[in-house]
This record gives sequence, structure tokens and C-alpha cells, in this order.
Amino acid sequence: MTSKTAAKTSAGRFFEDFAVGLALVHATPRTIGAGDVALYSALFGARFAVQSADSFAQKIGYPRSPVDDLLAFHVVFGKSVADISLNAIANLGYAACRFLDPVYPGDTLSASSEIIGVKENSNHETGVVYVRTRGFNQDGVAVVDYIRWVMVRKRDAASPPPKAVVPDLPKAVAASSLGHGVPRLDPAAYDDALAGSPYRWGDYATGEKIDHVDGVTVEEAEHQIATRLFQNNAKVHFNQFSEGQGRFGRRLIYGGHVISLARALSFNGLANAFHIAGINAGRHVAPLFAGDTVFAWSEILDSATLPGRDDLGALRLRIIATKNRPCADFPLRAGEGYDPAVILDLDYWVLAPR
Amino acid sequence: MTSKTAAKTSAGRFFEDFAVGLALVHATPRTIGAGDVALYSALFGARFAVQSADSFAQKIGYPRSPVDDLLAFHVVFGKSVADISLNAIANLGYAACRFLDPVYPGDTLSASSEIIGVKENSNHETGVVYVRTRGFNQDGVAVVDYIRWVMVRKRDAASPPPKAVVPDLPKAVAASSLGHGVPRLDPAAYDDALAGSPYRWGDYATGEKIDHVDGVTVEEAEHQIATRLFQNNAKVHFNQFSEGQGRFGRRLIYGGHVISLARALSFNGLANAFHIAGINAGRHVAPLFAGDTVFAWSEILDSATLPGRDDLGALRLRIIATKNRPCADFPLRAGEGYDPAVILDLDYWVLAPR
Amino acid sequence: MTSKTAAKTSAGRFFEDFAVGLALVHATPRTIGAGDVALYSALFGARFAVQSADSFAQKIGYPRSPVDDLLAFHVVFGKSVADISLNAIANLGYAACRFLDPVYPGDTLSASSEIIGVKENSNHETGVVYVRTRGFNQDGVAVVDYIRWVMVRKRDAASPPPKAVVPDLPKAVAASSLGHGVPRLDPAAYDDALAGSPYRWGDYATGEKIDHVDGVTVEEAEHQIATRLFQNNAKVHFNQFSEGQGRFGRRLIYGGHVISLARALSFNGLANAFHIAGINAGRHVAPLFAGDTVFAWSEILDSATLPGRDDLGALRLRIIATKNRPCADFPLRAGEGYDPAVILDLDYWVLAPR
Repeated sequence: MTSKTAAKTSAGRFFEDFAVGLALVHATPRTIGAGDVALYSALFGARFAVQSADSFAQKIGYPRSPVDDLLAFHVVFGKSVADISLNAIANLGYAACRFLDPVYPGDTLSASSEIIGVKENSNHETGVVYVRTRGFNQDGVAVVDYIRWVMVRKRDAASPPPKAVVPDLPKAVAASSLGHGVPRLDPAAYDDALAGSPYRWGDYATGEKIDHVDGVTVEEAEHQIATRLFQNNAKVHFNQFSEGQGRFGRRLIYGGHVISLARALSFNGLANAFHIAGINAGRHVAPLFAGDTVFAWSEILDSATLPGRDDLGALRLRIIATKNRPCADFPLRAGEGYDPAVILDLDYWVLAPR
Repeated sequence: MTSKTAAKTSAGRFFEDFAVGLALVHATPRTIGAGDVALYSALFGARFAVQSADSFAQKIGYPRSPVDDLLAFHVVFGKSVADISLNAIANLGYAACRFLDPVYPGDTLSASSEIIGVKENSNHETGVVYVRTRGFNQDGVAVVDYIRWVMVRKRDAASPPPKAVVPDLPKAVAASSLGHGVPRLDPAAYDDALAGSPYRWGDYATGEKIDHVDGVTVEEAEHQIATRLFQNNAKVHFNQFSEGQGRFGRRLIYGGHVISLARALSFNGLANAFHIAGINAGRHVAPLFAGDTVFAWSEILDSATLPGRDDLGALRLRIIATKNRPCADFPLRAGEGYDPAVILDLDYWVLAPR
Repeated sequence: MTSKTAAKTSAGRFFEDFAVGLALVHATPRTIGAGDVALYSALFGARFAVQSADSFAQKIGYPRSPVDDLLAFHVVFGKSVADISLNAIANLGYAACRFLDPVYPGDTLSASSEIIGVKENSNHETGVVYVRTRGFNQDGVAVVDYIRWVMVRKRDAASPPPKAVVPDLPKAVAASSLGHGVPRLDPAAYDDALAGSPYRWGDYATGEKIDHVDGVTVEEAEHQIATRLFQNNAKVHFNQFSEGQGRFGRRLIYGGHVISLARALSFNGLANAFHIAGINAGRHVAPLFAGDTVFAWSEILDSATLPGRDDLGALRLRIIATKNRPCADFPLRAGEGYDPAVILDLDYWVLAPR
């Protein structure tokens, strides 16, 4: 009976179970409905007008409000967890993420991944797995495409290391490849007052820093509800019985929760940067736990036009999220490393009307 | 860079920033969808049949279930926060609130306000701002119209006081002006058993008091999720880091949360009073915090017919909500002031079938 | 005034208020929308593909994704609470539950019950009430039919006992009566990879045990939100003020919450058992409180074909949920009784593709 049990229940893959070229079709496609949109909004507090109001979206050229880009990202990510990161120790980084097509309520998302790199760590107990994941809608159109790498436990420290393959990751997504996630818009029909800010793409300058001012405290129920909404079943987020005996003694909050909170906070200062077009790089610098209060600030790293598009421009942003520390003085470094309050360092592209 | 930063991030208006006549178009219109309705129901526990079941609503004359009146109110209120009350110390009162047209799932709400009064307080550190806010649907039809007044911090105690303007507020909304938020209904098709009570408009007598019996304990995650659902970003509700150092050492629960809880509790005793037609006056007598249990009781203040309507009648109710104190003995006064358990004193009009 | 008050507010029925043959139409029909589906998913973490993705459901023969069977069950159950179990001490058991027709988003559920048994307990302070409850959609089609029995307080220990009537309950629902809750499906179109498991009906053997591995910690906000979503207003779940002075000093979590958590956990091992066809018997062995972590394991009790159906087969499962105790060793008995960690013992039928 025991062997049957082991066969039917998934305990998740260990480092030995990954090989370069392995292709994985992830389980449980999901129709994103009006309920997911409302719940996402209520959990993170996003206030970008395009995603909030059908009438606003329609006026500028959308058929209706698209789903928040990060909701689509998290749903796709969530599908990959059971196959990739159930035994992950840490989600180390993101690269080459592009949002390729808008997602609308009623669309059904599915996901598949390919292993593009593996490298055992020197302690022989863990290794790094590089994976490219793509999300598709019900018509098979790719809506998001990204690479992440995770540290995964080995089943057995004695098992021989695989040949190390570390993919050559781009430092950034080329601005020229962005913008497919937004239909052509009419910037003249974009109402700045309803959107919450008079500042458009051209009003932001490279090097500019913006403190997003507000702080938001996270509760256990909130991150659990959010992470289940994404059907992300990573054990560390839900099981206080086992986590209480683990590294932190606490349930660990899904890193994507921090990204969504920081993004929602960034509305205050970046209200017109309504679309995330790509993610260049990202690090979860430190863990977040329930009871902590998240703050964020942004720096404009670059500004770019998009080929053939005079409706929108791209801003490359670095957003830094902290816990239990306001960001009026833009905390980042402390000595050789990060300021101890920093929990997220994310480099991404947003689009704003011109 | 600092000046640009300050310009792009809103820290909210201070008392000096308000002048009588100032008109404000609030940001972030919002499409109210099936998800908002479900989440509102799950957060507050409303059980009024009209708002719960399309089939019930259709049978009596609605095209489908309308959105709970208070959900529409809170969404409109929420939009006004960033412009009006981000630096408010307290929401002092409500008056002249009327629900003017039903809101249905799929409707998009937007809001605008006008400043109708300002009066500096004698301490020179704060002032009272009177504001009339209106919510509109996607066709520009007003769905709710109300006045509130809030105590707002001055930026600088030394700045000169404005000429005091205190608007003449009606003690109550005239019954003759109510009922526009409900289509003509067929009271014979209204099923008392499905609605949960045999008591219709004519069964309630002025002076009658009703203990709503049940109590409900509020959690941090619940009020935060609700308040974000309304896109209300007032700092005091979300930021334990700063509130922990503040007046109460706690996050303050949005006053509207208490109104919605009390309204849901009032189903037990007022199950057929399915529509809020107007709010005459209201005071948040004391703050509510997570962990507290809310109870409520009502008194029938008045009963009125509506011009040209034999389908519905109006009841003027006073609902008193308490914390951590059952209401079997109708707590209200203690000496000169309120019973220390009272947190809400709301005078409003409901409609019930005749 | 007091008598009027008592008349209009329901304090719930006591044991004396139930008589065999009493028929009850429950209040507040409810339209199950996209929001309820999303919230149910986010609260329990279900990952069964049929209920998650319209495209998956359509491919095998559904018009679109049906609502999770337990969501429909809980909504119907919730309606019965105000009339049956507001003063219940414990929900003792379930029997003869069948899911009779699929429920889709947009359907409106209502419920009615009949009292089929009463038996006073020897302490004269409580009695057991047996009730058959049925849920209907907006067309009057029964979607779920079940019997439960509850222990209810007497109003007065001195009131004479009724004639004891204990209905003859079936030990199990006959497999031949199952399957009406699923349209005829095309098992060849059922994609095992998207569903999350290669194991179909024929791969499970009687006597097989499956540890569902994962654990999930429950928060107060989560169970309160869920229970209100079901419009279940039983006092013990919501009122810390009174429960703090009661038996447990804590709010008691709705037993159905445990069933839904265990069901969601069972995806890991039973991913293709997508439909609950019936419940044979069930006991809430011990209470669950916020902060506890729920685990579960299943045993295959039986396997059956369905008359005239070669698309699906039935598995009779016993699922055991525990709190704060992993289930790798299948905890069940300890001496004469249950292992002290066991909180749920449920015997039910699921259907899986052949």
C-alpha cells in the first residue's frame, strides 16, 4: 500500500528530478473571472483606472478592463509551483519576463515550463534550477513568458551533481520588444483626473526617485487567501504546524504578494503607469511575515519609446520594498549589502500614456 | 529631485487646502462586478433577499439583484478619501444622504465632491471641512448624494483661519424625496418566507425597539480587505507601523465597516427593510478595533408613505451599534453622554414592502 | 414593546419547537456568481480542473465549469441554520446526501427542510433533531438532498419529551443512484496532465490509503468570511464576546469548513476525483479552532460502476482530517475511540473518469 500511496501523492520534485530540456505541462487551468479581479483588488488595493473601470478602459481603446498584469503573472506562477518549487528553499530571481497579450475576465490561463539550467550548490544539499515558464490563454496565445531560478533541496546529498548549465540571462528586456500586452490606445481620451495623476510618460526623468509614502500591514489570512487565489500550493505559506518548527518559526509570505503590494503602493506617484510590460530582474532580498508593514519607493532607471507606438512610452523602474521602515529617505544599501529593512528589489518596465 | 518627488506623490490635502466652492473629480472609477457583490456579502453577512437572489429581485420587478446600497456608498466614499480625508482625524458626521438610482453589477461608479463649508477649530491645529459628494454610474446618472464633515489637520497652526462657513444641514431627509433608488415593485410577488420575515412596513410602529441579538467579532484581515475593496486608502486603516505609534496604538477600523456590520445584523428583526433610501444623520461615537465584537439595536423613529407609491413604505430608523456589549437592554446614554459601549448612532430611512 | 421585539427578532428554534413532519421554507435564496466561486477557491485552495477552468469543463462535455459541489452544499446548509441549528450544540451527523444536478454560476439556490425525527436526550436539557434538507435551483430542480441530525437545546428542561422518532437511515447511498450531478462526459477528452494526475477511476483499489501530505492553518478571518459567504449565521462561529465565556473560550469553526479543507487537500492523491456524488455518513469528531493546522488522509472503501455510464466510475472514500498532526501513518483510532488529533470522519462517494 505504501508504494501506491507514494506513487499517487506528489511530494514535489527534488533537485535530482530536474534536467535541462525537461518540459512540464502544469496542472489546473483557471478561468479568471470577475471574482478573481475583485478579490485581487481587495487584497492588494490596486487603484489603476484601466484595470478598475470598464468605462475608462473602453474610452481609451480596450474592449473592457483587462486583468491586472500581476494577477495573471501570479496565476501562471502558481501553476508552476507543484512541479517546480514545492521543495524550493528560496525563489532566487526573475528575468526576461514579458507580458505578451492582455488577459480579460473570462479568459482561461494554463501554463507550461522548460528547465533551462541546473547547478548544484557547493554544500551538495541544494541546487539551483533555472526555468522558463509561459502562460497561455484558452486560444493558446502566450500572455506571459518569464524565467525564474529557485534553490531546491536535493533528495540525497550523495547523489552526483549534474553538469552545470547556467543560462545566459539578459540584463534587461529590450524596450523594443515591449507593448504587446496593450492594444493601441487613444491618449487624448485618457482622463488624467479619473486616473489620479497629471503626470504622463514624458513627465518622468531618469534618476528621479519617488517615495510611495503609504504603508500596509499584512495579515496571515490575507496572504493565505491571495496565494490560494493563485492556486499556489507551496507548503511554506500555509502550514504553521511545520513552519513553526522550521527556519523562521513562521509561515513565509509568497514573494509575489510583496510585488503586488509594492505595485499597489506605487500608484501614489505613478498612477498613470498602468501596465507592467516586462520584468528585467528581481530579488526577494528578505522574507516578509504577517504583522510586518510594507513600504516602497521607486527610481526611474530609464525611459524609452516603443517602435511604432506614439500612444505609450515605457519607463524602466526599480522598486524597493521595505518592511517596518518608511521610505522617505530611499533606503537601499548598508555597507556591502542591502539595508536590513529591504525585502524586494525589482527592476521592471511599465507603460504610461504619452 | 526632491521637489519633483513631492509633486508626484500625494500626501493628501490639509485644512488649508480646502476652500468653499472647491470642486474635486475623484480618481479611479470602478466597475462593480459579481466579485465585489460576493466579497461584500462574505465580509458583512448581509442576508436581504433582494440583493442576494436574482430570481427574488426579478419576481418583484427588478431587472436583477441590485448591489447592496452600502457597497455603492462605500465605493463612492472610498474615492473621496484621497482628495478629502487622507489626513482626517475623524469623520464627524453624515447628512442629507439619498440613494437616487439602483446600482447593478456591471455598472461603473465614479465620484465628485464640492466643498460646502470650512471652520477652523479653536486649537488652530485642526479644522472641520464640510463636503458634498456624489456618485455617478457610467451614464452619468447620480446614484448617491451625501454630505459629510471631517476634522482635518492644518499643515501649519500659524496659517490664518479661513472665513467660517457652516452649511445649514437638514435634520432629516424628507420622506417625500425618497424611493428613487427602487423601481416600482409588486408587493404581492414578494415572498415573505424567502425574505425571512412576515413583518412588512405596516407592522412596525414608531417607538418600537428591536434588539438584533447577534454579535460579530471583527478581524484585521476582514476590515482591511473590505476597505481596500472600496479603494479607500485612508492610512489609519492599514498601517500598523505608524498607527502603533499613534493615538490608539492600533489600526482604526473604517467607520463604514461598522455601518455595514450593523446593517447586516439588523436583518434579524428587519428582514424586509431591504433598501436604504437615505441617511439623515450619523455619528461614529467611538472607534472600533480588531478583536471587538459588534452588536446593534434599532428604534423606529418614524413611518411614512411615499408620494405616488403604494408598493413601499418608509421607516425612519435609529440604529445603535455597540462593542463588546449585547443590546438586549438597548444601551444608549450614560449621564450626559453615550453609554461607553456605543460606537455608532445612525439615523436613516429604509424602505419595506407594504 | 418587549413582546413586539421578541416577536420580530428570531432567537432560533429550541428542541420543543420541532415536530416530526414540520416543513420549513428557508429564507434568503442566493444567486451563486463568479465572485462566490473565486472566493470559495481562495478560501479553500481547490485545484480540481473541472471546477477551475471553463475550457477544461467544456472539452469534456459540460456547458461550462460547474460550481464546486461543496460550495452548493454549504450554501444550502447555510440557509437551514436560522431555522434549524441557531441553538444547536453540535452538528452530529450526515446521511443520505446526494448531489442531483450540476450548479452553474448564475444559478439561484433556495432550500427547504422537513423534520423527520426527534428524540430527547436523557439529561432532559437537549434533544436530537433529524432533518432532511433539499436545495433547489431557480427552476425548482433539486440539486442536493441530505439528512443531518443536530443536538439542540431545550427551552425548558421541564417541558415534556416528544414521542421519540428516529428515522431509519441508510448506511450508504447506493452507487446505482449516483451520477445525476454530472452530464455524460467524454473521458478521452479529459487531459490528465492538465488535471494533475494520471490516475483514473480504475487505478484505485479498495483498501488503498492515501496521505494527502499538505497541511493548512486556519485563521479566524478565513472561516468567518467563508461561513458568511454561505450565509450561515450560527452564532458560535462569529461572536468571540459570547464564545469567550462559553464551552471552549473560542469561536468554533463551521464543520463544513473542515470538510472543504480536507477535500481541497485530497487533490494531492485524488486529482481526478473531481465530483462529489454523495455523502454516506459523516461525523465532526472534534472541534477546530483558528490557529490549528488541518491535515487529511483517505482510504478507498469501495469502487463501483454506475448504471449506463461508461464515462465515469464511483469511488467510496473515507477521509479523515486531523488537527496539528500529519497523516503519514494514517491516524484513526486510539483505544476505544478516535485518535485525539482526528476532527473529521467522512464517508462519501466521488466520481472519476474511467
